[in-house]
Amino acid sequence: MNGSENGVERTLPKNVGILAMDIYFPLICVNQEELETFDGVSKGKYTIGLGQTNMAFPTDREDVCSMSLTVVRSLMEKYNVSYQNIGRIEVGSESLIDKSKSVKTVIMQLFTDKGNTDIEGVDSLNACYGGTAALFNAVNWIESSSWDGRLAIVVAADIALYERGPARATGGCGAIAMLIGPDATIALEGIKGTYMEDVYDFYKPAFLPKEYPIVDGHYSIKCYMKALDHSYKAYRTRFERKMGHPFTANQADFAIFHTPFTKIVSKAYARLYFNDYLGNPSEFPNVPSSYKDLPLEETFVNAEIEKTFLNETKTKYAQRVQPSTFLSKELGNLYCGSLYSCLLSLISDQSVVKDLVGKRVLLYSYGSGLAATTFSVVIRAPVHNISEKADIHSRISKRVQLPPQEFTQILDGRELLCKDPSYTLSGSLKNVGNSTYYVEEINEKLRRRYAFKQ
Amino acid sequence: MNGSENGVERTLPKNVGILAMDIYFPLICVNQEELETFDGVSKGKYTIGLGQTNMAFPTDREDVCSMSLTVVRSLMEKYNVSYQNIGRIEVGSESLIDKSKSVKTVIMQLFTDKGNTDIEGVDSLNACYGGTAALFNAVNWIESSSWDGRLAIVVAADIALYERGPARATGGCGAIAMLIGPDATIALEGIKGTYMEDVYDFYKPAFLPKEYPIVDGHYSIKCYMKALDHSYKAYRTRFERKMGHPFTANQADFAIFHTPFTKIVSKAYARLYFNDYLGNPSEFPNVPSSYKDLPLEETFVNAEIEKTFLNETKTKYAQRVQPSTFLSKELGNLYCGSLYSCLLSLISDQSVVKDLVGKRVLLYSYGSGLAATTFSVVIRAPVHNISEKADIHSRISKRVQLPPQEFTQILDGRELLCKDPSYTLSGSLKNVGNSTYYVEEINEKLRRRYAFKQ
Repeated sequence: MNGSENGVERTLPKNVGILAMDIYFPLICVNQEELETFDGVSKGKYTIGLGQTNMAFPTDREDVCSMSLTVVRSLMEKYNVSYQNIGRIEVGSESLIDKSKSVKTVIMQLFTDKGNTDIEGVDSLNACYGGTAALFNAVNWIESSSWDGRLAIVVAADIALYERGPARATGGCGAIAMLIGPDATIALEGIKGTYMEDVYDFYKPAFLPKEYPIVDGHYSIKCYMKALDHSYKAYRTRFERKMGHPFTANQADFAIFHTPFTKIVSKAYARLYFNDYLGNPSEFPNVPSSYKDLPLEETFVNAEIEKTFLNETKTKYAQRVQPSTFLSKELGNLYCGSLYSCLLSLISDQSVVKDLVGKRVLLYSYGSGLAATTFSVVIRAPVHNISEKADIHSRISKRVQLPPQEFTQILDGRELLCKDPSYTLSGSLKNVGNSTYYVEEINEKLRRRYAFKQ
Repeated sequence: MNGSENGVERTLPKNVGILAMDIYFPLICVNQEELETFDGVSKGKYTIGLGQTNMAFPTDREDVCSMSLTVVRSLMEKYNVSYQNIGRIEVGSESLIDKSKSVKTVIMQLFTDKGNTDIEGVDSLNACYGGTAALFNAVNWIESSSWDGRLAIVVAADIALYERGPARATGGCGAIAMLIGPDATIALEGIKGTYMEDVYDFYKPAFLPKEYPIVDGHYSIKCYMKALDHSYKAYRTRFERKMGHPFTANQADFAIFHTPFTKIVSKAYARLYFNDYLGNPSEFPNVPSSYKDLPLEETFVNAEIEKTFLNETKTKYAQRVQPSTFLSKELGNLYCGSLYSCLLSLISDQSVVKDLVGKRVLLYSYGSGLAATTFSVVIRAPVHNISEKADIHSRISKRVQLPPQEFTQILDGRELLCKDPSYTLSGSLKNVGNSTYYVEEINEKLRRRYAFKQ
């Protein structure tokens, strides 16, 4: 009997959050500097302008389901988790291969074989926010009366590809899996500020036979910043209500952000301080007091304000944010996995890893359309075990760089796959890494079968 | 401060569940008897074979977002809920008009205008199970440490349409909205048995320019029954663990089922008793003991067993299940909303409504692909207020029956809408009811704008 039945008090599971995490990314990537040359754009447009180094992408042999199978299996095996001990799996993705059947059901392949079919959770959908929704749902489940004592897995997996043109360099690909439970190494603080609104900054009409989004890049950046303002404000209100004192960005030992491209992150971090300035201008003696009188609408694309706060936060950015950008630079935009790849980069960074226990990380999750939440986690125990098992620096260095020409051909193949139901898979298995699931067949009824490359 | 922070005990919100509910269905429908004649099939094939009376369907002026806007606004207004008092909205649907942007974000239109943008929740996706996933997520949120005291809304909305052929008569259309909070009229018992598996019984490949599923009807019924067996078994195990005594179907005062077509429900109810029989054959003196020795696989399509248990449960079915089938017969398959339309039918039935307080309802939610849960609710207070506000019998009787010819033409129009990005909306507004949102425009960028017909 529990509290919901007889009214007695119940001790909530404490410090629910991330016990373990892993990432999958494809074996292949394209170099952004080479892509600049290939695309005939000005030197530095992708590498400095966007802040990107390489971009991960898959052949037609990978999809959201194969990637999810790979990363979940890897997590289970690396941490030697019992397949019976998982009671919930939830997926965040916007790279659906089906508008009805969830990715979650495909992941069940791994568990049915082990005799565990009683696993809650399906897919959460809203652009790059799905992984965060899935994380919150998993944490809430563990804190609810229907929790049965088992752990949850959250998967955030996407393939971000864009039409030929200026947006193409902002693609990326990868899948994160997180093991969720009580007494976690990285615990959610239970403070969240959310902002949602009905906008069309980036979307994928359901009946277009393509996997590319329709995107208004400049408008989307404005939406990202506006939602950051609002969700950060809501976070601060709730923080003060819970903790009894105000919150400013200085109280975040680290800050990580959804990262469509790395360059935006320094601006987002600076924007937190612009918000703090609006709340208390006297704390910012170097900032003109006139900024606070501008209509908020005018501040989103104001180069002077941007520069002022980039300068204000330059040192802090290097210490508190930059360590989280490693995977974003190397993989590109992971959509749902982006924010969590930043967390994994942070806890894998040699300059900070020794001194993380007790630290607060502020997180900003953004999904176009739009859904955004600012929330925070506390690192409660050493994270070496997680970073060693994920081993991201070594794995990133072992990837195969394909020339832009081949990258383009592979994307052309994926375009055909979306348009032509009779398309035959042509991607070479040499471009699929070991210990990786891949699409073995798409049959005449468009059912996909997956195989595991040992 | 709460339990997750400092370890003190916390009283869980009690009896979390459904405080209020409403349904939206289109003004127009087609009569199944007329459809039999039009399709040239044997008389009774749809009306007796499937158990259907009418089928709701929309013109091209309605989509999952317009229906969700309508039903949420209706719920808010009928119950005079403050727009500030909603902290979570979550949608279950498989009728996506976008593969990235959630239906939830469109519903935000109603709340942004009222100054409430801090609302959690996105869309839950897995065929007809999405509404149940959304309900569980909302309940868990209220029981979690991050609950802020506000209420949640769960929307289950779908448009079920099939290609010309034998499956077409199993379509339907409607949207359910439920207000979720503590001390509920209809409270979840916190006992669930779940079964998930990777199958292709019904699915919608993401890149096909159509809203029809690919479906293997016979296989899907087998999957439905298999998942019923497994989830019911898991439910009974958990019930006994929590309550200290075994569960049999007789302990459910009422039972309601996801209803692809009404005829399947009597078979599903009979199947619960077949499961009870397998657990304890001596309780079924009229049933041959040999049935228990058959491989389970052979029992799913065994006409003799089916008939035996249909006979065993005939009287109970009439009392405990049939009152829940009214809306399914009149609307068809509502996909995510189906199970909850059964709940609304049940509490709107004059023969049972006087005597519902204290009664347990067993619920079976099934979504192809597959995801299934058997769970239970208890009705804790009189439901007249909900049924009077929903007013389903009167509203159903006021619909407009269109001839099968016009039904077919309207569906042909929707087919074009999916195939042709330059399609112009042609549905007459006379086929849209009052107090209803409709699609006013789909622009050249495929962005949809909604208007409200007073």
